[in-house]
Amino acid sequence: MIGNFTYCNPTKLYFGKGALAGLDEELPKYGKNVLLVYGGGSIKRNGVYEKVLARLKANGKTVFEDGGVMPNPTIDKVKEGVARAKAANADLILAVGGGSVCDYAKAVSVSVHCDEDIWEKYFIRFDDVSCEVVPVGCVLTMVGTGSEMNGGSVITNPAQKLKIGHVFGENVFPKFSVLDPEFTFTLPKYQMVSGIYDIMSHILEQYFSGTDDNTSDYIAEGLLRSLIHSADIAVENPLDYEARSNIMWTATWALNTLIAKGKTTDWMVHMLGQAVGAHTNATHGMTLSAVSMPYYRHILPYGVEKFARYAQNVWGVPAGDPETTARAGLARMEAWMRKLGLAMDLTELGATREMLDGMVQSTLIMDGGYKILEKAEIRAIFEESFGEARA
Amino acid sequence: MIGNFTYCNPTKLYFGKGALAGLDEELPKYGKNVLLVYGGGSIKRNGVYEKVLARLKANGKTVFEDGGVMPNPTIDKVKEGVARAKAANADLILAVGGGSVCDYAKAVSVSVHCDEDIWEKYFIRFDDVSCEVVPVGCVLTMVGTGSEMNGGSVITNPAQKLKIGHVFGENVFPKFSVLDPEFTFTLPKYQMVSGIYDIMSHILEQYFSGTDDNTSDYIAEGLLRSLIHSADIAVENPLDYEARSNIMWTATWALNTLIAKGKTTDWMVHMLGQAVGAHTNATHGMTLSAVSMPYYRHILPYGVEKFARYAQNVWGVPAGDPETTARAGLARMEAWMRKLGLAMDLTELGATREMLDGMVQSTLIMDGGYKILEKAEIRAIFEESFGEARA
Repeated sequence: MIGNFTYCNPTKLYFGKGALAGLDEELPKYGKNVLLVYGGGSIKRNGVYEKVLARLKANGKTVFEDGGVMPNPTIDKVKEGVARAKAANADLILAVGGGSVCDYAKAVSVSVHCDEDIWEKYFIRFDDVSCEVVPVGCVLTMVGTGSEMNGGSVITNPAQKLKIGHVFGENVFPKFSVLDPEFTFTLPKYQMVSGIYDIMSHILEQYFSGTDDNTSDYIAEGLLRSLIHSADIAVENPLDYEARSNIMWTATWALNTLIAKGKTTDWMVHMLGQAVGAHTNATHGMTLSAVSMPYYRHILPYGVEKFARYAQNVWGVPAGDPETTARAGLARMEAWMRKLGLAMDLTELGATREMLDGMVQSTLIMDGGYKILEKAEIRAIFEESFGEARA
Repeated sequence: MIGNFTYCNPTKLYFGKGALAGLDEELPKYGKNVLLVYGGGSIKRNGVYEKVLARLKANGKTVFEDGGVMPNPTIDKVKEGVARAKAANADLILAVGGGSVCDYAKAVSVSVHCDEDIWEKYFIRFDDVSCEVVPVGCVLTMVGTGSEMNGGSVITNPAQKLKIGHVFGENVFPKFSVLDPEFTFTLPKYQMVSGIYDIMSHILEQYFSGTDDNTSDYIAEGLLRSLIHSADIAVENPLDYEARSNIMWTATWALNTLIAKGKTTDWMVHMLGQAVGAHTNATHGMTLSAVSMPYYRHILPYGVEKFARYAQNVWGVPAGDPETTARAGLARMEAWMRKLGLAMDLTELGATREMLDGMVQSTLIMDGGYKILEKAEIRAIFEESFGEARA
């Protein structure tokens, strides 16, 4: 642990069966106007909507609705939400849904009292928030993004073919989040598995960076082992509460800033995946899984010691020649990914080779990884991501 | 992860070289009267006192001093601190020192505006705080207790021969803590090693409980592996910044509520150690090390699967017959403890067999472990803790 840092994560979490009762503790802290934000309506089919509404009414709230948040929320939808929040004079934004809905709520929360162009300010210039922030609370119904306990917000600009995430400071973190694993039980298996890989990618993107000795990497290995163990159970029996609850908790700690403390990080898998997401309507976690193996095989030679450590500590590969050990670890990871049913080829996600130029163009290049990519390398990784045949 | 829980840890941490600059961000949030709490004066010898005082003055604070907090702070000293805080009309209590100083500051903070007998209220009845709490900030100079990011406060009543810890809620957590690993460099090696075992015991006491599958146990294993790795380096070279910073960070996460979430815990090693502490003036971590091996050997048969998992995942013992594997893990742990120079015999700590009745009497029996102890078992464990010969 060499780097200096600050750590502050004030989000209060209510976790477990019946955790929605936590709303009775939280709602009295805010004024009466609540903007209820949700997605395509699955919460109306699985009963979560009714339960949330009953708690809001019991706490004397006036509810204003803002439904229809799409899986990759657009900047135009955010602007619509801002108008609704203003009209409602919202004292609290309550996001009920998955990471997209939480991300969207945060983007609205920092824009209600902001007079500037919010796309330019937050997602192009990455400016800090300089205006009042409307408080956000979350009720999670999908697991993966970690948005329930961080300042992240990923917003898409379809006109510019850009999908960009901004990480806001602790003043934008949700004030509280309700995490009931049973609220995720009705999710289709494809979405569950996609979320599992999103979690894994979050951990790996913070792990595969730097060469110093850091407690954060040991915590990351623990989270990875728990995730792999519980994913194997959940994919066989999606209603296994214990496994689903472990996955839910792992997701939160995979991306709430903890495992990045004191170290560098490498977010290139997300940059590649988000470029795919900007050109298709593919599920986020699947865009990450489809590009991961080509990316990791490409950077392995530049970080072979860390990949060898990963192979031993996470996948149980016996110690040996570092490169052989490292490659054996990736092979075990790939076999596990295929067993889970993750997308391993961009073709599955509706991407075509005609989109290749655009995807390369949309990919933001970040440093922090074992190799800073050139545009030609990004193209090669995408090409290899098309070349994979599903086992 | 079966149990329901809430998680909230609002303490802001400033970590790394020069982290004391964080005071310039924090101090302006509070009024001008600061009660500066510290221990026996080591901070005056190593320069930390001057640095803190300069920051306080630069931020326009009026400083009231409360020095002389002892390693096992007494309830009488707490009452003296309360009187000083009242006389100062303190807006902030700034604790500069190790866990004892932080614990003491918290005990004072919840007592300034409390009219009841605070020993009876907090340490005998374990009542919640019902009065206003004076905010506490910490500047850590000793690593181990985790007090910098939790609500714990261990106070001794010498007249009653009791040393009791109360865990307060998040309103009593320090508002901020400054963690500069270099501030711990002047600590004698004995104290450093004692702190390392305090950390290890915190992790183990949360780990060795329950049989469910829980992400918290995986995080605990990661912390243990990091701790063992860095302790081996620090004991050879106490000025290794990287190792000391990893140990400092591990200490914080070992006891800030995270790794207890969703599971039961077993605090019997602390109960045994605190009974020793109530009858001697032994260093806290050493009281834990001296009783640990007899305790763990005693409960191993009741939790053999978990001890076997520990042996494999933390100490690298090959899988095999669970009991053999489990005992091999404890043997590796014991060898490591002896290598570090930890106390393995109560005689080293000034305890005598004449104290045995009293120590048994002072030991609080808690549930949560693999075996709820009888008084006779506590006596046997203490007797075995006398019987160990130092290697």
